[in-house]
Amino acid sequence: MRNIVTLTTDFGLQDYYVSAMKAVMLGIAPDVRMVDISHEVPDQDIMAGSWVLQNSAPLFPPNSVHLVVIDPGVGTDRNPIALKVDDQYYVGPDNGIFSLLTENKEFEAVRLTNPKYWKEKPSNTFHGRDIFAPVAAHLSNGVELSELGEPVNELKTYRWASPIADKDGLQGWIIHIDKFGNLVTNLPDTLIDEVIGERPVKIYVGNMILDELVNTFGAVPEGEPAAYIGSAGMLEIGINKGDAAEMMSVKKGAQISLVLQKED
Amino acid sequence: MRNIVTLTTDFGLQDYYVSAMKAVMLGIAPDVRMVDISHEVPDQDIMAGSWVLQNSAPLFPPNSVHLVVIDPGVGTDRNPIALKVDDQYYVGPDNGIFSLLTENKEFEAVRLTNPKYWKEKPSNTFHGRDIFAPVAAHLSNGVELSELGEPVNELKTYRWASPIADKDGLQGWIIHIDKFGNLVTNLPDTLIDEVIGERPVKIYVGNMILDELVNTFGAVPEGEPAAYIGSAGMLEIGINKGDAAEMMSVKKGAQISLVLQKED
Amino acid sequence: MRNIVTLTTDFGLQDYYVSAMKAVMLGIAPDVRMVDISHEVPDQDIMAGSWVLQNSAPLFPPNSVHLVVIDPGVGTDRNPIALKVDDQYYVGPDNGIFSLLTENKEFEAVRLTNPKYWKEKPSNTFHGRDIFAPVAAHLSNGVELSELGEPVNELKTYRWASPIADKDGLQGWIIHIDKFGNLVTNLPDTLIDEVIGERPVKIYVGNMILDELVNTFGAVPEGEPAAYIGSAGMLEIGINKGDAAEMMSVKKGAQISLVLQKED
Repeated sequence: MRNIVTLTTDFGLQDYYVSAMKAVMLGIAPDVRMVDISHEVPDQDIMAGSWVLQNSAPLFPPNSVHLVVIDPGVGTDRNPIALKVDDQYYVGPDNGIFSLLTENKEFEAVRLTNPKYWKEKPSNTFHGRDIFAPVAAHLSNGVELSELGEPVNELKTYRWASPIADKDGLQGWIIHIDKFGNLVTNLPDTLIDEVIGERPVKIYVGNMILDELVNTFGAVPEGEPAAYIGSAGMLEIGINKGDAAEMMSVKKGAQISLVLQKED
Repeated sequence: MRNIVTLTTDFGLQDYYVSAMKAVMLGIAPDVRMVDISHEVPDQDIMAGSWVLQNSAPLFPPNSVHLVVIDPGVGTDRNPIALKVDDQYYVGPDNGIFSLLTENKEFEAVRLTNPKYWKEKPSNTFHGRDIFAPVAAHLSNGVELSELGEPVNELKTYRWASPIADKDGLQGWIIHIDKFGNLVTNLPDTLIDEVIGERPVKIYVGNMILDELVNTFGAVPEGEPAAYIGSAGMLEIGINKGDAAEMMSVKKGAQISLVLQKED
Repeated sequence: MRNIVTLTTDFGLQDYYVSAMKAVMLGIAPDVRMVDISHEVPDQDIMAGSWVLQNSAPLFPPNSVHLVVIDPGVGTDRNPIALKVDDQYYVGPDNGIFSLLTENKEFEAVRLTNPKYWKEKPSNTFHGRDIFAPVAAHLSNGVELSELGEPVNELKTYRWASPIADKDGLQGWIIHIDKFGNLVTNLPDTLIDEVIGERPVKIYVGNMILDELVNTFGAVPEGEPAAYIGSAGMLEIGINKGDAAEMMSVKKGAQISLVLQKED
């Protein structure tokens, strides 16, 4: 059974866009269980959407279907696709939105060319309602990828700039700022373990210098900044009961440096 | 079976208002499937709510029940009603919120006068929780409209100003601005086909003049404005990867003109 | 059956936090019915969360499970707990979030010490995903409180300042401002009945003086302020089709006085 379909969009919840997709899916797959991942991905921000997806979609039960509509190129020649990565199905535009999920992974993908699984006469501006939602619903009904279209071997992918490791330490970037103002970096715990280990380090970010990694932001006094491994397994900078992005004047894309110190 | 109940309100999701209604419905109809249409209709904006409803409610499977609580007159003498239009049921205040759904349609409506289907001792300020949600849940359980109250033949209705067609072309208004800043007009594709057809036209809106209709906003270069038929079947003005409302300084209610040009 | 699990957090819906919790619960309890109470509790505002919970959780069918993650102390020594109050179950941090629900109530509570019901190797920063959501899902599967950990008899509690009643009348505070700008006070209808009754009263709040209580904000002319008993059973101040907080320049914590007048 693949009766779970999640939804990830940049549609917000003010318009009819999300509910129109849900209505269509309920018509095709009456027992579908729909779960919203997020409809507040920043407008047309493909990497932000890819980040949210990467950190939630793989946690769903096997054979869940993930409908993803962040689609600035709707109606142009970007391909509509469906794919399977590990034990999860995905449906959406081939515009890079699946970059983080497919990085270094095997996947099976098809271009959606079989209109049998679409709404009749799809509009040019809302493939979410007219192509992607119907396809997701049919997938949840057990339709196979191969019935939906022809195989594609390569997807459009974006990458974040990779961290730089050298003898002085590590340099990375802020890839996401969460709702609390916590700064998420592109430095995974495994890389930090490997390059820094237990050696003393200073962490430079925005207008602050931090002296150590702690377990959680609650480990420092209120109003103080903390560097810790966040729930996505990446280095994060937060402020205990405060907003780090605001207090440190840091924006997405800002640099963070871990500089090894001479051991005493 | 009528086990789907959708919810459309201006309550936002910060307060307990929406979840109180859901709790009440689950108590009355344990198998109800609740789908949020929107809780972000602008405060007490009846026509905005009517627009969202019109573009999503009719897409739901037959016999879905749509609970609609945009209710600035709660506790005063406006009528609580339930109605059936085509194959869908609706519950809410008779304040114009069903205007677009009932326009030129047959409908069957009742005034909610039977307190058997309400919470005991309903409050004066939250009929959503105490009258409308219980009634929607009972409807989803199969209760008939006729059991809920006495028939009403006329509903309060609002209309948007109609488009004006003359020998020079078409004049309409912006009736909705969506989350992306796209401008939705009151000019349906059918009217444009009829009045303009394939003849050359200039489109005047805000501080811009557009020279043609295209298939989708993605068909113009980034940052450029496009006029296209949107997913609601109405003429829309958008900017490829931009916010038209902001860039054109256009607000809801602004005029849009399609002026026929001399053919060369 | 306890198949309903509600969610109340300050996570917003922009990040993966809420959907990660839902994914985890669906893996443990495939038939769980998840209902969002709110994810827009102001950041780390424990009393705001407690207020929302108090006004919705008890309305759910018996044996519902309420997952509550407003958790500024995550990873520090605050206790993770589960409790039963009346016929409802709750899971979350012992940081005062359950204050209003347990006030003057019997309850049965346990400290979550049995890692059998957690994710393996829980993170330090996201107990919502790694401890609370799994525990809520297991509770919904029928696991008993006593299996989750050891009993605790006392919970951390906060209280709002109590209203003051004297011969001149009543004095209270604004404890919540809702999405419409309505001012919710800590003055319950029962206390007003007892202290004021039918006697004439003037109501002082912000820069306004009101002369009477009415049934609903719709009972006064548009743009005028009204004092009425709101849907939570507390005195509220609203403005018919207006935003009271804005028009009266009132913030949470502001004082409100009901001053008894000489009867003519």
